[in-house]
Amino acid sequence: MHSTQQNQQIVLAAHPKGTPTPDTFKIKAIDMPELGANEVLLKSIYVSVDPGMRGFMDKGDDDAAGNKYELNKPITSRTVAQVVASNSADFAVGDIVHGRFAWQKFQSVSPDGLEKVDPSLAPISTAVSMLGVPGLSAYFGMLKVANIKAGDTVVVSGAAGSVGSIAAQIAKIHGCRVVGIAGSAKKITYLESDLGLDKGINYKTTDDMTAAIADACPDGVDVFFDNVGGELFDAVFANINPHARITICGQIADYNNDTVTQGPRPMHTLIKKSARMEGFVVFNYADEFDAAKKQLAKWYNEDKLKYKETLTEGFANIPEAFIGLFSGENIGKQMVKVADLDS
Amino acid sequence: MHSTQQNQQIVLAAHPKGTPTPDTFKIKAIDMPELGANEVLLKSIYVSVDPGMRGFMDKGDDDAAGNKYELNKPITSRTVAQVVASNSADFAVGDIVHGRFAWQKFQSVSPDGLEKVDPSLAPISTAVSMLGVPGLSAYFGMLKVANIKAGDTVVVSGAAGSVGSIAAQIAKIHGCRVVGIAGSAKKITYLESDLGLDKGINYKTTDDMTAAIADACPDGVDVFFDNVGGELFDAVFANINPHARITICGQIADYNNDTVTQGPRPMHTLIKKSARMEGFVVFNYADEFDAAKKQLAKWYNEDKLKYKETLTEGFANIPEAFIGLFSGENIGKQMVKVADLDS
Repeated sequence: MHSTQQNQQIVLAAHPKGTPTPDTFKIKAIDMPELGANEVLLKSIYVSVDPGMRGFMDKGDDDAAGNKYELNKPITSRTVAQVVASNSADFAVGDIVHGRFAWQKFQSVSPDGLEKVDPSLAPISTAVSMLGVPGLSAYFGMLKVANIKAGDTVVVSGAAGSVGSIAAQIAKIHGCRVVGIAGSAKKITYLESDLGLDKGINYKTTDDMTAAIADACPDGVDVFFDNVGGELFDAVFANINPHARITICGQIADYNNDTVTQGPRPMHTLIKKSARMEGFVVFNYADEFDAAKKQLAKWYNEDKLKYKETLTEGFANIPEAFIGLFSGENIGKQMVKVADLDS
Repeated sequence: MHSTQQNQQIVLAAHPKGTPTPDTFKIKAIDMPELGANEVLLKSIYVSVDPGMRGFMDKGDDDAAGNKYELNKPITSRTVAQVVASNSADFAVGDIVHGRFAWQKFQSVSPDGLEKVDPSLAPISTAVSMLGVPGLSAYFGMLKVANIKAGDTVVVSGAAGSVGSIAAQIAKIHGCRVVGIAGSAKKITYLESDLGLDKGINYKTTDDMTAAIADACPDGVDVFFDNVGGELFDAVFANINPHARITICGQIADYNNDTVTQGPRPMHTLIKKSARMEGFVVFNYADEFDAAKKQLAKWYNEDKLKYKETLTEGFANIPEAFIGLFSGENIGKQMVKVADLDS
């Protein structure tokens, strides 16, 4: 039985100043949880680490779903887990589920907020990536916020990341010309050769990004799906067309800043171009999640949507995998595999 | 006949650096125009001066409608004029028309772009104010861009101006709580007593605008109709609600700056609040102008929409009236009366 296994959790040891470091986190040995009435005991299998979590690690802050990262309390993130004991009629031992769980090897949770994973749709880790918040963010950000249509020129920043790679492919599926921005030669090859984007631009080796965008988008930019922000934003923004739609999905360039960064005020250009900048959180579209997941899985199984993970192994390496997101090395979704499924 | 009258025009003498000065303009005596085939000879009656014109006086710039302000060429703006001679079958002597005309006492124009003014709707000067671009900007900016609905808390900056005063009243007509920002005690009285807004805030005598907006909007800000920009924008933006809609209509704080001004990047807040910033130019809605004018005139005649002009007299005073827009003194629409109608 699992009660003899060692349990561990990772807590927030210090509110990070700037980019998180190993000292931001602390790994602790804890008891195996008691299983209360109607609860289920979960073993974590895949833990998702996401750049957006950084934005909510500052003191007193919380995320869009109301999750707080408090000192000495476990970090939570989207996780795929297996039920290893159950007092709930709705979940049986062996079921695979996902939800927002603590960074713990084992935990007891209420069945509220647990969702079953259908392993027939796609690999189970995709429940928190392609078929989870990243994929859904790409889906609704492109289709509901940006309102892409065939023939649009679409620029995606962070295009090799978990959201960007799916967003860019959704735009291709809809007949757009798609230019992806990423930060390594390997990622550019991935964008152009594996994902079939019309053009990839490596911002780390490009002196004048404004000119590079203009060159890659001879008809201007109709849609900008921004995961990055900062000066990359400015370079794309300088090339927008009349009636441009700018989806603000993430701002990884900004998450580690203590204060709000300054930049050129966009208002004048928004007027001249009759353009729109819109932020969103994916939970706005919760009613449509099931339909979106089915569509994403359909594209995946038709090989229209490719999906890539960067996998780190081992519970103790979760903090390192999270910190690594900010060095721009990972391609696709960064996941941590914590344990094998019980068969 | 008019051919014996002296004609005058006002040209752009120098691209302004910062706020326009009298040296930006030059008044010239010119010949009375010849009346070509199919042309009409116009006598200017009311000339509109608008802050947005400043944004297009820089070298090489042009406005959304493609009008350029070139050195030694006459300035153009929306004007109400009377036909004093006509070679066009569509326009008779005595007709009142409006369009974008040169700052000239008399000019011959092609009938393209001439629109007749219906004096039964409202005073004829309103053809270029309440029933012209300012009123239509307020109408479409509130109803199509901001999508106001009853119960929204709406903040309008530049609320005593030509666009803002109409925008604020349209929001009141639709059952919103409306807070107006303006720059003098006289204007605040106008907003609260004459226009019936829920609250006016004098930004010139308020130390902490962010707190003042919070105080005036206890339920937060659902819609921000911005005519001003700059730090006033930041103060309102700090108080937006989830799903806020921000209509960027004008940026008078910014028109006289040589370079794009810097400000806090809004992206992070746009994400957290699922909020939208959208610019527009009123000509996007040209197909709906007639219906909008009828609705605005109906509200005016039902006394639901009040309209105020600041009137300067005399052709030679057009530059002064324009420059005065940037000192924040005018209430409502700034117009210049150039001549009386022929009866």
